[in-house]
Parts: sequence; structure tokens; C-alpha cells
Amino acid sequence: MLIALFPGDGIGPEIVAQAKRVLDALAIDGLTYEDGLVGGAAYKAVGHPLPPETLDVAKRADAILFGAVGDPDCDALERHLRPEQAILGLRKELGLFSNLRPAKVFPELAHESALKPEVAGSIDLLIVRETNGDVYFGEKGFRTTADGLREGYDIMSYNEAEVRRIAHAGFQAARARRGKLCSVDKANVLETSQLWRDVVIEVSADYPDVALTHMYVDNAAMQLVRNPGQFDVIVTGNLFGDILSDQASMCVGSIGMLASATLNGSGQGLYEPIHGSAPDIAGQGKANPLATILSAAMMLRYSLNLPEQADRIEAAVAKALANGARSPDLGGAMNTVEMGDAVLAAL
Amino acid sequence: MLIALFPGDGIGPEIVAQAKRVLDALAIDGLTYEDGLVGGAAYKAVGHPLPPETLDVAKRADAILFGAVGDPDCDALERHLRPEQAILGLRKELGLFSNLRPAKVFPELAHESALKPEVAGSIDLLIVRETNGDVYFGEKGFRTTADGLREGYDIMSYNEAEVRRIAHAGFQAARARRGKLCSVDKANVLETSQLWRDVVIEVSADYPDVALTHMYVDNAAMQLVRNPGQFDVIVTGNLFGDILSDQASMCVGSIGMLASATLNGSGQGLYEPIHGSAPDIAGQGKANPLATILSAAMMLRYSLNLPEQADRIEAAVAKALANGARSPDLGGAMNTVEMGDAVLAAL
Ligand SMILES: CC(C)[C@H](C(=O)O)[C@@H](O)C(=O)O
Ligand SMILES: CC(C)[C@H](C(=O)O)[C@@H](O)C(=O)O
Repeated sequence: MLIALFPGDGIGPEIVAQAKRVLDALAIDGLTYEDGLVGGAAYKAVGHPLPPETLDVAKRADAILFGAVGDPDCDALERHLRPEQAILGLRKELGLFSNLRPAKVFPELAHESALKPEVAGSIDLLIVRETNGDVYFGEKGFRTTADGLREGYDIMSYNEAEVRRIAHAGFQAARARRGKLCSVDKANVLETSQLWRDVVIEVSADYPDVALTHMYVDNAAMQLVRNPGQFDVIVTGNLFGDILSDQASMCVGSIGMLASATLNGSGQGLYEPIHGSAPDIAGQGKANPLATILSAAMMLRYSLNLPEQADRIEAAVAKALANGARSPDLGGAMNTVEMGDAVLAAL
Repeated sequence: MLIALFPGDGIGPEIVAQAKRVLDALAIDGLTYEDGLVGGAAYKAVGHPLPPETLDVAKRADAILFGAVGDPDCDALERHLRPEQAILGLRKELGLFSNLRPAKVFPELAHESALKPEVAGSIDLLIVRETNGDVYFGEKGFRTTADGLREGYDIMSYNEAEVRRIAHAGFQAARARRGKLCSVDKANVLETSQLWRDVVIEVSADYPDVALTHMYVDNAAMQLVRNPGQFDVIVTGNLFGDILSDQASMCVGSIGMLASATLNGSGQGLYEPIHGSAPDIAGQGKANPLATILSAAMMLRYSLNLPEQADRIEAAVAKALANGARSPDLGGAMNTVEMGDAVLAAL
């Protein structure tokens, strides 16, 4: 089984290195690795954030372990050359349409949240975000209005097939958890959302055991603050999912702990921490590698069908935390390698 | 000066009645009032959520004092007949493009927030949301793809004139406050946002005294949880403003306290509490009228140029709270009329 290692920018190489150490310690038979350049690092080396060689590795791989992209040196580049295009390009080229972002508090860290500990402590939700369509990938550009004004435009759309496959992903995730699915849209204003809602309701016929509700996105943003414990699985489109999943992560408090997976229909997946490349602390050993290590666990579970090994990693992370492992973002003083050591010791 | 009173649905009539009592108590010379039907109430009476007679009153009025719209009986209606269309129609027909939503905690109520009191207590921000453009008002509909699939679509766009006028509103608001403006967009993905950002930067040349920053909407949703005290004025488009302003309100905790104004270029404005029609408690005297009373104060300040009278109302609300006035949503037992009484007594 081939794993593509794409460390990317900023703290990416440091955190991916720790995840690799943990994978190595599991001594899983038949795992091979190939590296690839992505993001600003790729642009600087070869002039493009997602070079053809990288895309080729990605397509051949069973799973991609991704660090982070984002580099202030690239801020002035045209959009198609900026580091983020690596992520958008991989999602599109590999058909990675189902982005899974679990948000759950580790009890030891509930006080890190800006939310009251009892509210933060109630969070145990999964956001299933569509990542191949919506206003992200529609026709877009600049044009001139009839009055000669500059105008920017982006077409938002979803078709029924796109909604159906992510709806199935949402229902299946809910079935494997607490059986509650909340579909988030803005059907009171958007036709894209009306189609979304219609199709989600159609798909719900296949899941009589899952309790489906609908919520407008503005209300969802409120409820995630007021009472995030009410949610089990949230399924939503690309744009709303971008906003709500980041909001939910911050409600948990310690974004250095949160992993994500983005899957296609054949089990291939891209696995990455939800935090960014943190250029301000890059190369200083201050980064918390736990979200990347937990992303590697998701990779074993979803793409490599090794759930016991995934459980082992997750248990080791929980134990390391319980033993007091704390990087600076968690209020401690351990460096990136020491955090990796703590997980290895607990494995 | 003519004030249009549009109570709307649910608790709307009860809360608008209390705001009217407070306005009456100020005995302002030359104020006249006309009533109008909006929302589900209008649909039930005359078959449309924004009947021509109502629109006529609105156009002639200097300001509109609005309760709330939303009625579960109307959920199954076609979109153009649903209660929310009253709000969208008034914004569009009167050119009300600048939605101002201040979010600030009353010290007595900081504990009501799901955020830690010290975080909630740090909130003192104003969201300036554009409400005449974006994906709300672009071409939209259903179509069939080349493969015969149902598809919903909505065109997102902004032209430079639309961005310029809301940018000016944002800079002017920042100048009158703490001099900080944060423009929120998704320029790493959307061309509409790129044009938005370009034009905001152009307009900033007129406001060298205002410190301008830019933030992606996903990051803004995180920062509003993590450290909302960092914001002074946020300016953003219609869709992002819908989500972020509701999120910010909930961070404050007591949405029964939050007022809003939506202005056009000639000083006309629509004033409404940010909470909804709360059909579950309608007609029971449980609604908190303070957000509507504070909306009336914003009306005096922004549309009627009566800042001293606005100050009087705001001071009376603060005093009523300090004196212990609490409706059920604030953990108390006072009914809607008693809350109005408490403000009148403090006036
Ligand atoms: C980098 C950016 C294009 C991306 C997105 O908006 O999808 C990121 O915010 C994410 O959520 O993965
Ligand atoms: C009712 C709805 C159409 C409206 C909006 O989305 O603008 C509301 O949520 C608001 O924020 O005023």
C-alpha cells in the first residue's frame, strides 16, 4: 500500500515527520512511501503549487498524508499559483468529495476553549463537507457591467448526483455514530440549497433509522456557539462547510488536536490536520504534531482498512495527553519531537 | 416624520407595542405612524408577504420599525410567498444596502453567553453587512445538466459600485468607533471576493486614519469564537454577513438584547431586533422587548437625527437592566409589558 507524504509549507515538514515516526513504530507490513512537493514549497522549487509529478504520486497512492500549505511569500502571486491551489487541485483531480472533520474535546483540554468548559465539553460532532462542487468550482471571473463597472462573479451550483453522494456519506456517518443528521443549507434564499434539501430528503428514505433535520446556515452558526452538544453529524456544502467546520474546531479550543479526512468514492483519501502552516513558528520545533498523528490514524481507518492500528494511535495520543504531554499551544513547553516521543512511549 | 410600524408575525406585535410606548413617552414633536402588514400575517390577510399597500407605506416613511417575520404555517409555500420575502423585498425595493449590527455585552448579562465571561465581556463590535447584492439577488433557478440531472444554481456577484458604497459605510463606522476595519471575504477562492478586496483597498485611500485588515471568512468564524474582542468594525458581503452576524450575536449571549438597522443612501432605514418571530412563545407575554426598544433608539439616531433621544432610550434600557429587569430569556420572570414598564420607569 502506497502512502504519499506531502509535507508542504511552514510547520508541515516537522509535523509530518512525527506522524511518520508513529506509523513506522506500528511496523505495518507492506506500507511504502513516496514524497511529493506541494504548496509554496513546490512553487519555489518547480514553479507550480501542484506539479505534475506530485499529482502523479497522489493518483497512484492509496492515501495522502498532508501537512499544510500556505506561505506569505506567495501572497502576491496570481490565484492559480498560490499554495492553496494544491489542496483545491488534489480534491478536484482525485474526486475527493467527502471531507470528514470530527470535533471532540479531550477532557484534559476543555479549559482551552473560549467556550465555557461545560459547553466545550459537550462537543462531539462530525462535519461532513462536500468538497468537489458549489461556488468553489463553478464558472468564475471578472466582467464589465452594462454601465461599464468592474464586476466579479462566481456561479454556485449543485446537481442531484453531487448532493446524493455526499448525502449518503452523511447518513452513513450518522448511522455509525448516534443516528442524528443535520443538513445545513440556506434554502430560504438559494435555489442551490433548495435542490440540496430536496435531494437530501429523497436520500433519507434509505435511512429510516437516522433522524434527519434541516437548519439554515445562519442558525447553525448560532447553534454551534449556543449549544454545540446538540449536533451529531452535520452534512453541508463546500462553502458553508468551510465556515462551519472552522468555527466548530475553534469551539473545541485546541485546533492543534483536530484531524481531517477527505475521501473519494474508491476509498482514496487525503489526510491532514485542520490547522494551517503557521509560518510564524516554522522550523522552531514549537508545532504540535498531534493533529497530524491523529490524521494518520484516520488514514489507517478509512483508506487502509486497519482499524485496530488506528485505535492504537488514538489511544496513544489520549494517553500521552493524560500523562501531561503539552506543546506550547496547549499551554506546555514540549517541542515537536518530544510530543512525538510521548506518543511513541504510549503506543 | 413618518414611521412605518410593521409588527409582522409571532411575537412581533407584542414587542413593537412596547417600543411604541417608549417612543410615545419621549413625546417627540411631529412623529406620525402608519401600520403595515408584513410576513405570514400579510400572506394570511391578503395573499402576499409584502403587499403593495405595505410597500407604499414603507416608501413614504422616514423609517420602518419592524418586529419579526416567520410563521410555521407558511413553511410549505413557494419561496416567493414565504414570510422572509418581506425582509428581502423591503431591502431591495428601498435600496437598503447597509445592515448595521452592533454586538456588545451588557455587563450584567455576560454570564448568559456560552463563551467564558471574560471572552464574552470583551465583545464590542459592529458588523456592517451588505444587503442588496451577492448571491442573494443574482440570477438563480433550476436547470438540467447535459447528463439530464436536476441542478440548482445561484449567481454570486458584486460590482465595484456596490462594494464601494458599503466599504464607505464600513470605513465611516470605523472612524466613528475605534478606527479599525476588518474586511471579510474568501478571496483565495472567489473572484467576487477578489473584486471586493481590490475595491475595499481602493476606498481605503480616503481613510488613512482607519486601520484596514483583511480576513478569510473561515478564519473570521474561528476568530469570533477565539478572540472576538480583537474586532472593532467588520465589513462583509450579504452571505458571509448573514452567517457571521448571527454567530457574533450568539457570542454575546442574549440575542433578546440585540438591535439592527438597515440603511439606504438617503437616510431611510429599517430597524428590527435580530431575533426571530419565536412562534412558540407568541401571544404569551414572554417575549423580551428590549432589542426592539433598542432598535427604536437606532432609528432615532440614524434616520431621524435625534441622537439625544436615542441616548435616552439606551440609557434607560441599561438602567432597567441594572435595576434587575429580566424577562424569561434573561433568566427572570417579567413579562413583555413589565419589561416595557421597567424601561419607561428608567426613562
Ligand atoms: C485553503 C482553502 C482554499 C481551503 C478551503 O476553503 O477549502 C481551506 O480553508 C480548507 O478548509 O481546507
Ligand atoms: C430571513 C432571511 C432571508 C434573512 C437573510 O438571510 O438575510 C435573515 O436571516 C437575516 O439575516 O435578516
